[in-house]
Formats: sequence, structure tokens, C-alpha cells
Amino acid sequence: MDPATWIAIISIVTAGLTIAIGSIGPAFAEGRAASQALQAIAQQPDASDTITRTLFVSLAMIESTAIYCFVVSMILIFANPFIDLVTQTAGG
Amino acid sequence: MDPATWIAIISIVTAGLTIAIGSIGPAFAEGRAASQALQAIAQQPDASDTITRTLFVSLAMIESTAIYCFVVSMILIFANPFIDLVTQTAGG
Amino acid sequence: MDPATWIAIISIVTAGLTIAIGSIGPAFAEGRAASQALQAIAQQPDASDTITRTLFVSLAMIESTAIYCFVVSMILIFANPFIDLVTQTAGG
Amino acid sequence: MDPATWIAIISIVTAGLTIAIGSIGPAFAEGRAASQALQAIAQQPDASDTITRTLFVSLAMIESTAIYCFVVSMILIFANPFIDLVTQTAGG
Amino acid sequence: MDPATWIAIISIVTAGLTIAIGSIGPAFAEGRAASQALQAIAQQPDASDTITRTLFVSLAMIESTAIYCFVVSMILIFANPFIDLVTQTAGG
Amino acid sequence: MDPATWIAIISIVTAGLTIAIGSIGPAFAEGRAASQALQAIAQQPDASDTITRTLFVSLAMIESTAIYCFVVSMILIFANPFIDLVTQTAGG
Amino acid sequence: MDPATWIAIISIVTAGLTIAIGSIGPAFAEGRAASQALQAIAQQPDASDTITRTLFVSLAMIESTAIYCFVVSMILIFANPFIDLVTQTAGG
Amino acid sequence: MDPATWIAIISIVTAGLTIAIGSIGPAFAEGRAASQALQAIAQQPDASDTITRTLFVSLAMIESTAIYCFVVSMILIFANPFIDLVTQTAGG
Amino acid sequence: MDPATWIAIISIVTAGLTIAIGSIGPAFAEGRAASQALQAIAQQPDASDTITRTLFVSLAMIESTAIYCFVVSMILIFANPFIDLVTQTAGG
Amino acid sequence: MDPATWIAIISIVTAGLTIAIGSIGPAFAEGRAASQALQAIAQQPDASDTITRTLFVSLAMIESTAIYCFVVSMILIFANPFIDLVTQTAGG
Amino acid sequence: MDPATWIAIISIVTAGLTIAIGSIGPAFAEGRAASQALQAIAQQPDASDTITRTLFVSLAMIESTAIYCFVVSMILIFANPFIDLVTQTAGG
Amino acid sequence: MDPATWIAIISIVTAGLTIAIGSIGPAFAEGRAASQALQAIAQQPDASDTITRTLFVSLAMIESTAIYCFVVSMILIFANPFIDLVTQTAGG
Amino acid sequence: MDPATWIAIISIVTAGLTIAIGSIGPAFAEGRAASQALQAIAQQPDASDTITRTLFVSLAMIESTAIYCFVVSMILIFANPFIDLVTQTAGG
Amino acid sequence: MDPATWIAIISIVTAGLTIAIGSIGPAFAEGRAASQALQAIAQQPDASDTITRTLFVSLAMIESTAIYCFVVSMILIFANPFIDLVTQTAGG
Repeated sequence: MDPATWIAIISIVTAGLTIAIGSIGPAFAEGRAASQALQAIAQQPDASDTITRTLFVSLAMIESTAIYCFVVSMILIFANPFIDLVTQTAGG
Repeated sequence: MDPATWIAIISIVTAGLTIAIGSIGPAFAEGRAASQALQAIAQQPDASDTITRTLFVSLAMIESTAIYCFVVSMILIFANPFIDLVTQTAGG
Repeated sequence: MDPATWIAIISIVTAGLTIAIGSIGPAFAEGRAASQALQAIAQQPDASDTITRTLFVSLAMIESTAIYCFVVSMILIFANPFIDLVTQTAGG
Repeated sequence: MDPATWIAIISIVTAGLTIAIGSIGPAFAEGRAASQALQAIAQQPDASDTITRTLFVSLAMIESTAIYCFVVSMILIFANPFIDLVTQTAGG
Repeated sequence: MDPATWIAIISIVTAGLTIAIGSIGPAFAEGRAASQALQAIAQQPDASDTITRTLFVSLAMIESTAIYCFVVSMILIFANPFIDLVTQTAGG
Repeated sequence: MDPATWIAIISIVTAGLTIAIGSIGPAFAEGRAASQALQAIAQQPDASDTITRTLFVSLAMIESTAIYCFVVSMILIFANPFIDLVTQTAGG
Repeated sequence: MDPATWIAIISIVTAGLTIAIGSIGPAFAEGRAASQALQAIAQQPDASDTITRTLFVSLAMIESTAIYCFVVSMILIFANPFIDLVTQTAGG
Repeated sequence: MDPATWIAIISIVTAGLTIAIGSIGPAFAEGRAASQALQAIAQQPDASDTITRTLFVSLAMIESTAIYCFVVSMILIFANPFIDLVTQTAGG
Repeated sequence: MDPATWIAIISIVTAGLTIAIGSIGPAFAEGRAASQALQAIAQQPDASDTITRTLFVSLAMIESTAIYCFVVSMILIFANPFIDLVTQTAGG
Repeated sequence: MDPATWIAIISIVTAGLTIAIGSIGPAFAEGRAASQALQAIAQQPDASDTITRTLFVSLAMIESTAIYCFVVSMILIFANPFIDLVTQTAGG
Repeated sequence: MDPATWIAIISIVTAGLTIAIGSIGPAFAEGRAASQALQAIAQQPDASDTITRTLFVSLAMIESTAIYCFVVSMILIFANPFIDLVTQTAGG
Repeated sequence: MDPATWIAIISIVTAGLTIAIGSIGPAFAEGRAASQALQAIAQQPDASDTITRTLFVSLAMIESTAIYCFVVSMILIFANPFIDLVTQTAGG
Repeated sequence: MDPATWIAIISIVTAGLTIAIGSIGPAFAEGRAASQALQAIAQQPDASDTITRTLFVSLAMIESTAIYCFVVSMILIFANPFIDLVTQTAGG
Repeated sequence: MDPATWIAIISIVTAGLTIAIGSIGPAFAEGRAASQALQAIAQQPDASDTITRTLFVSLAMIESTAIYCFVVSMILIFANPFIDLVTQTAGG
């Protein structure tokens, strides 16, 4: 196979695995934080404003690691710099 | 085999694994959050509105990581940019 | 083997594994949520309506990740776009 | 080997593994839900009707993920669409 | 080797693994349910009728996933449709 | 090697692994149920009749999954239908 | 190598692994049951007769799964039916 | 394939895996810290200022390990020094 | 290599692994039973006779699974029936 | 491929894996320490100064193991001594 | 390589792994038993004689499984019966 | 490839993995010790001097195992004795 | 390569792995025993003599399994009997 | 490659892995012991002398298993007896 095909294959596999593996950690972590927030509200209903706000800030921070993975995955599929490199090399 | 076949094979495998692996984390996390919400309602029935609302926001946020995986999976099956690339290269 | 056979083989394996692996997470999560709902009813029988309703919404949301996998699995078996692609390429 | 044999082999392996792996999650989840229901009855015998009903709805929902796997497994053994495809290709 | 031998080998391996792996989940789940039922009886002897009945319904439901695996295993050994297919193909 | 040898080798390996892997789940489950029964007797000596009876029914049900594996293992060693098939094919 | 050697090699490996893997589950389970019995005696010394009797019945039942493995292991070493089969085939 | 292609392939795989694996630890850790912070607020609402501040400092420190991985991943995709090295070697 | 060498190699590996893997389960189980016995004595010093006796019967029963493995291991090293078989075949 | 390419490939893979694997431990550990610090503040608000100071010293010490990995990773990418060695050998 | 070398290599690997793997279980088990004994002494100092005696009998019994592994390991290094066998075969 | 290249490749991989794997244990252990120290301060603020001092001695001792790994890693990259050996052999 | 080199290579790998794997179990077990001893002293300072003595006997017994591994490792590096065997065979 | 290179490569890998794997167990164990010591001081400040002394003896004993690994690792890098052996064989 020609180099571009190889890079396409590898990019597909990597893009899929990156987001698949990369979603495990954040999902678990968000589930844990959300679950604890619910318990906290049940225990201290008066502090539900502080709890909800802290929860959302934390969820956003955790979500950021999932987004890193999604960004890398999208770059590999739609803006892969190595495709250009190989095309130039082949066309050079 | 020709490059398009290879890319098709890899895309099929990756699409399946991405959604399969990617559904583990969110499912567990949603189960945990939902289970805690139920416990919280049992413990503090008066706060069930706050609890339910916080639960649904959290579930939506967790579901988002599963949807990232589903999106990548659908892109690989129905809108795969590398198929065009390889077809152009072969037809060029 | 010809490309169509390869794609058929890969699709079979992927379809099976996708639904097999993809059913682990939702099953566990539903078991957890259901188990907690039962405990919650035992603890607070008066809130059984709220608990049951929240349980069913949560189960539906968790079931959705299993359905994503089932959809990908069915697409690969009965509506595989790559089969047409390869057939066209071969017939072109 | 001819393509039909390959597809037969792969289908056998996949059918077996799909139902084998796919039965782990539901079995555990049903065990957990049932075990919790028994504990709930012991704790609150008066609510045994609500508990039993919620248990059976939950078991049915969990069983559905096992049935997805069983369906895919049976399709692969007795109604495999790729066998026809390959036979047609060979006979074409 | 001829195709029938290959299919025989694969069927043997798959049949064994299917029932071996497929018995882990149900066994654990039944152990858990039974263990909890015993604890429930010890805690609430008066409800032993309800508990025993719920236990047996649950055990039957869990056993069903083991039986799915046993059915697939027996089909692969004694009623394998692919053997006929390959024999016909060879004899055609 | 001739096909009969291959089938013999595979049957040996599969028979051993089937019973080896298949004995893990039931053993654990029986240990768990028995251990809980002993705890229940210690907690509620008056209900020891009900507990013992429920224990033995449960052990029998759990043992059944081990017996499925033992049956498949014995079939593969002493009543393997594929041996006849291959012998007939070779002698045909 | 000749077929008999292959079968000998495979039988040795399988016999060893079968008993090695197959002893893990029963050993753990017996340890659990025994440990719980000791705790039960400490908690309720007056019921030590019932406890000991239930313990020994349970140990025997758990031991049975280890014995299944030992039986298969001994059959493979000292009464292997495939050795005769292969010898007859070679001598036929 | 030429060296640049190899390096491109390896860089893609490594970049994906680095961020995928590297996001598991921080995500879990942030989930744990956030979850504990919510519990702490519920337990001691008066100290919510100190708790929130300590939480954000800790999240930043944990996030730093995820950022190390993201930095390495971006370097490999967009500023890979080995690409220049190989290009020079080839052009030398 | 000649068959006898192969069988010697396989026997060595299998003998070592059998006893190595096979000692894990019993050791853990004995540790658990012994540890629980010590706790039981601390909790109920008057029943130390019953406890010690039950402990030793249980340890003997658990040790039996380790001894099965040791027996198979010694058979493979010092009384391997397949060595004779292969020697006879070679000398026949 | 020439040696420099091999070393480039290996360096890329190693650099990525080193920081990816190496970030798991510190992240978990920092999450644990931070989570405990938050609990400690909630339990003993008066000692929050001592707690915060001890926390930061500990985080710095834990972070050091992540930095060891980052240092090795950067050395491999930007200051790899083996590249010079191989270049000299080739140019010698 | 000649057979004796192969057997030497395999014996070295097996001897090392046997004692390495085989020391994990006993070590853990002894650690558990000893740790429980210390707790028991702290809880019931008057029974320290019975506890210490039961501990040492148990440690000896657990140590026996480690010694089985050590025996097999020493046999393989210093009294390997297959070395003689192969030497005789070669010299015959 | 020439020997020096091989040794360079292996050294890179080993150096990376050594520090990556070797940082997991110490990081976890330091996290555990630090987390317990914080809990101890919250529980007994008056003993914070003794606690902090014991913590730092323990952290230093745990850090030492991470430093063993870092030392080996640095030796392999910057002071590798085998590079000289191979160079001498080649130049000899 | 000549046999002595093979045996040297295998001995190095085995020696390293034996002590590396073999140190995990004892280290954990000693950590557990020591940790429990410290808790016991805190709980019952008057029995610290008995506790310390029992701890040291137990540590010595656990250390013995680590020493078995160290002995095998040293034998393989400095007193390997197979080296002589192979040298004699080669020189014979 | 010549034998010395092979032995160098293997020694590098083994040395790295030995210390990397071998540092996990001791680090965890020291973390556990230290963490328990801190809890013990918080619980019983008066016994801090006995606790600290027992802790340091235990840490030294646990550290010894890490040192075994470090010793083997250093021997393999700087005092490898097989290098001399192979050099003599080659020079003989």
C-alpha cells in the first residue's frame, strides 16, 4: 500500500481508540462527582447553591480532559498534518 | 487487497470498538449518579426537585462523552474523509 | 479471498463484539440503579412514586448507550455501506 | 479455504463469544438487583408488592441487553446475510 | 485440512469456551442472590415465603442467561448448520 | 497431521479448559452462599431448617452450571460427534 | 513430530493447567466458607453442631468442582481415548 | 515505506495513546477531589471558602499532569523534531 | 528435536506452572481461614477448642487442592507415562 | 531503514508512553491527598493552616515523580544522546 | 541447539518463575494471618498463648505450599531427570 | 543494524519504562502516607509536630525507591557501560 | 548463537524477573503485618512486647519467601549448573 | 549480532524491569506501614516512641526487598559474569 493509505488506516484506528479510551476516565470521574453532589444536597439542602456551583466548575474541569482527547481525535481525522507531508514528499 | 478495502475494514473495526468501549464509562457513571440520586431522594424527599434537576444536568454531561464516541463512530462509517482521499489518489 | 469476503468477516466479528462488550456497561449500571431504587423504596416507601419515575428515566438514559451499540451492530450486518463501495469498485 | 468456510468459522466463533461475553453483564446485574430486592423485603415486608413489581420491570430491562446478544448470535448462525452475499458473488 | 475439519475444530473450541465463560456470570449472580436470601431469612424469618418465592423467580431468570450459552453450545456440537452448508458446497 | 489428530488435540485442550474455567464461578458462588448460610444460622439459630433447605436448593442450582461444563467436557472426550464426521469424510 | 507426540504434549499441558486453574476457585470458596464458619462459631457457640455439619456438606459440594478437574486431568494422563484413536489410525 | 512515513505513523499512534492514557489518571483524581470537596461543604458549610480555594489549587496541580501529556501529544503532531532530522538525513 | 525432548520440555514447564499457579488459591484460602480463626479466638476464647478443631479440618481440606497440583506435578516429572509411549513408538 | 530513523521512532513511542504511564500514579496520589485534605479541613477547620501547608509539601513531593517522567520524556525528544552517537558512527 | 541446551533453558525459566509466582500466595497469606494475630492479641491479650500457637501452626501449613514450589524449583535445577534421559537418548 | 544502534534503542525503551513504571508505586505510597497524615492532623492537632516529622522521614524513604529507578534510567541514557563494550569489541 | 550465550541470556532474564516478581508478595505482606502491628500497639500499648515479638517472628517467616527467590536468582547468576553441563557437552 | 551485544541488550532490559517492577511492592508496603503509623500516633500520642521505632524497623525490613532488586540490577549492569564468560568463549 502507498504511504497515504497507511497513514489513513493508522489515523482511523488512533482516532477511535483515543476518544474511546479517553472517555472512560472523565465519565467515571463525572459520575463520581455528580453522585457525591447529590448525596451532599440530600445531607445539607441549604447549601445546594454552593454545591451545585462547585459541581459545575468541577465537571467543566473534568470534561476538559475528555475534550483534549476529542480534539486530538478530530485533528487526526480532519486536519492531519502528516497527510500533507506525505503528499508533498510523494509529489516532490 | 486494494487500499479502499483496507480502509473499509479498519473503519468497521474501529467504529464498533469505539462505541463498544466508549459506552462502558458513561453507562457506569450514569448508573452511579442515578443510584445515588435515588438514595438521596429516599433520604431527603423534600429536596427531590433539586436532586432530580441536578441529576438530569449531570446525566446530560456524562452522556456527552458517549456521544463523542458515537459521533466518531458514525463519521467513520458514513462520512469517512479518507475514503475520498484514497479514491482521489487512485483516480489521480 | 476477495474484498467482499474480508469485509463480511470483519463485519461479523465487529458486530458481535460491539454488542457483547457494549452490553456489559449498561447492564451493570441498570443493575446498580435498580438495586438502589429497591433499597430506596424499602427505606422510604412513601416516596416510591418519585423513586420509580426517576428510576425509569435513568434506565432509559442508560439503555441508550446499549442501543447505540445495537444500532452500530445492526448497521454492520444489514446496512453496511462499505459492501456497496467495494462492489462498485470491483464492478467499476 | 473458500470464502463460505471462512465466514462459517468466523460466525461460529463470534456467535459463541457474543453470547458468552454478553451474558456476564446481565447476569451480574440481575443478581445484584435480585439480591437487593430480597434485602429490601426483609427490611420492609409491607412494601413487598412495590418491591417485587419494580424488581420484575428492572429484570426485564436488564434481560433486554442479554437478548440483544442472543439475537445477534442467532442471526449469525441461522440467518447470516453474508452467506448469501458470498454465494451470489461466487455464483455470479 | 478440509473445510469440514476446520469447522469441527472451531466448533469444539467455541462450544467449550461459550459454556465455560458463560457460566461465570450466572454462577456468581446466583450465589449473590442466594446468599442475600439467606441473610434476609435470618433477618426477617416471618417473610421467608415471599423471600423464597422471589429468590426462585430470580434464580430462574438468571439461569436463563446460562441456558442461552448452553443452547448455543449444544447447537454448535449437535446441530451445526454450517457443516451442512460446507458439505453441500463441497458436494455441489 | 491428519484431521483426526487435530480434532483430538483441540478436544483435549477444550475439555480441560472448559471444566477448569467453568469451575471457578460455581465454586466461588457456592462458597459465598454457604458462607452466608453459616452466618445466617449464627444470627438466627431458630430458622436453621429454612436456611439449610434454601441453601441446598441454591447449591443445586449453582452446581448445575458446573455440570453443564462437565457435560460438555465429557462429550468432547468420550462422545465427540466430529470424530465420526471426519472419519466418514476420510473414508468416503 | 508424529501425532502421538503431539497428543502427549497437549495432554500434559492441559492436564497441568486444568488442575492448576481448577484449584483456584474451590480453594478460595472453601477458605471463605471455613472462615465464615469459624466466625459463626465465635458468635453463636451453642449452634456449633449445626454450623459444623452445614460446613462439611458445603465443603464436600465445593470440593466436587475441584474433583471434576482432577478427574479430567487424570483421564488425560492415564486413560486418554485419543491415544488409542491415533494409534489405530496410524496402524490401520 | 520511506522513513518520514514511518515516523508519521508512529507519531500519530503515540500522540493518540499518550493523551488517551494520560487523561485517565487526572480525570479520576479530579473526580475524587471534587467529590470530596462537595462532601466537605455539606459537612462544614462555614468553611466553604477554604475548601473551594484548596480544591481549585489541587485541581490545577492535578490538571498539570494531563497538560504534560497534551503538550507531548501536540509536540509530536505539530512540532516533531525527528521529521526535520530524517528529512535532513535524506536530503543530505 | 526428537519427541522425547519435546515431551521433557513441556513436562518441565507444566510441572512448574502447575504447582506455582496451584499454590496461589490454597495459600490465600488457608490465610483467610487461619486469620478468621485467630479473630474468632480473640472474640470467644472459651470456644477455642471447637475453633481450632474446625480450623484444622478445613486447612486439611483446602490443602488437598494444593496436593492435587503437587501430585500432578510429581507425576509429570518422575512418572510420566507419555515418555514410555514415545520411546516405544520410536523403538517399535 | 537507517539507524537514525529507528531511534527516532523508538524515542517517540517511549517519550509518549513514559509521560502517559508516568502521569497515572502521581495524578491518583495527588487526588487522594487533596481529597483527604478537604475532608480534614471540614473536620477540623481550625487546623486548616497546618493542613494546607502539609498538603502543598506533599503535592510537591508527589509531583516530583511526574517530573522525573517528564524530564526523561523531554530528554528523549530534544536532547537524545544516542542520535549523536549514531550519527558519529555513521559519519565515522 | 542440541536438546540438552533446550532443556537447560527451559529448566532455568521454569525454576525461576515457579518460585517467583509461587511465593506470592504464601507471602500474602502469611501476612494476612500474622496481621490478624496481632489484632487478636491487641483485642484479647490474655489469649495470646493460644493465638500465637495457632498462628505458628497456620504459618507452617501455609509455608508448605511455598516449599512445594521451592522443591520443584530445586529439582529442576539440581536433580533434573530429563537431562539424564536426553543424554542417554543421545548417547544410545 | 549495527550493535550500537540496537543498544541505543533498547536503552531508550528501558529508560523510559523504568521511570514510568517505577513512579507508580512511590506516587501511590506517598499519596497514601500524605493523605493519612492529613487525617491524623485533623484528628489530633496537638501531635502535628510528631506527625509531620514522621511523614517526612517516611516520604524520603519511599522516594528512595523512585530514585533507584531514576538512577538506573539516567545510567542507561548517559553512562551506559555496554556502549563502550560494544564499541571496543567493534574496534578491536 | 552458541548454547552458552543462550543460557546466559535466559539466566539473566530469569534472575531479574524472579527477584522482581518475588519481591512483590513479601513486601506487601510485611507492609500489612507491620501496619497491623502499629495499629495494635496504638490500641493496646501494654501488650507492645508480645506484639513486637510476634511481628518480628512473622516478618522473618514472610522474608523467607523473598529469600527463596533471591537464592534462586543468585544461583542462576553465579552458580549456574547448566553452564558447566553445556560447556562439557560442547567440549566432549 | 555477536553474543556480547545480545547479552548487553538483555542485561539492559532486565536491569530496568527488575528495579521498576521490584519497586512497586516495597513502595506500597512502606506507604501502608507509614500511613498506619501516622494513624496510630494520632490515636495514641503517648506511645509515639514505640510506634516510631517499630515503624523504622519495619521500613528497613521492607526496604530490604527493594534492595535485593537494586543489587541484582547493579550486578547485571556493572558486574555481569556472563560477559566474561562469552568473551572467554569467543576468545578461546
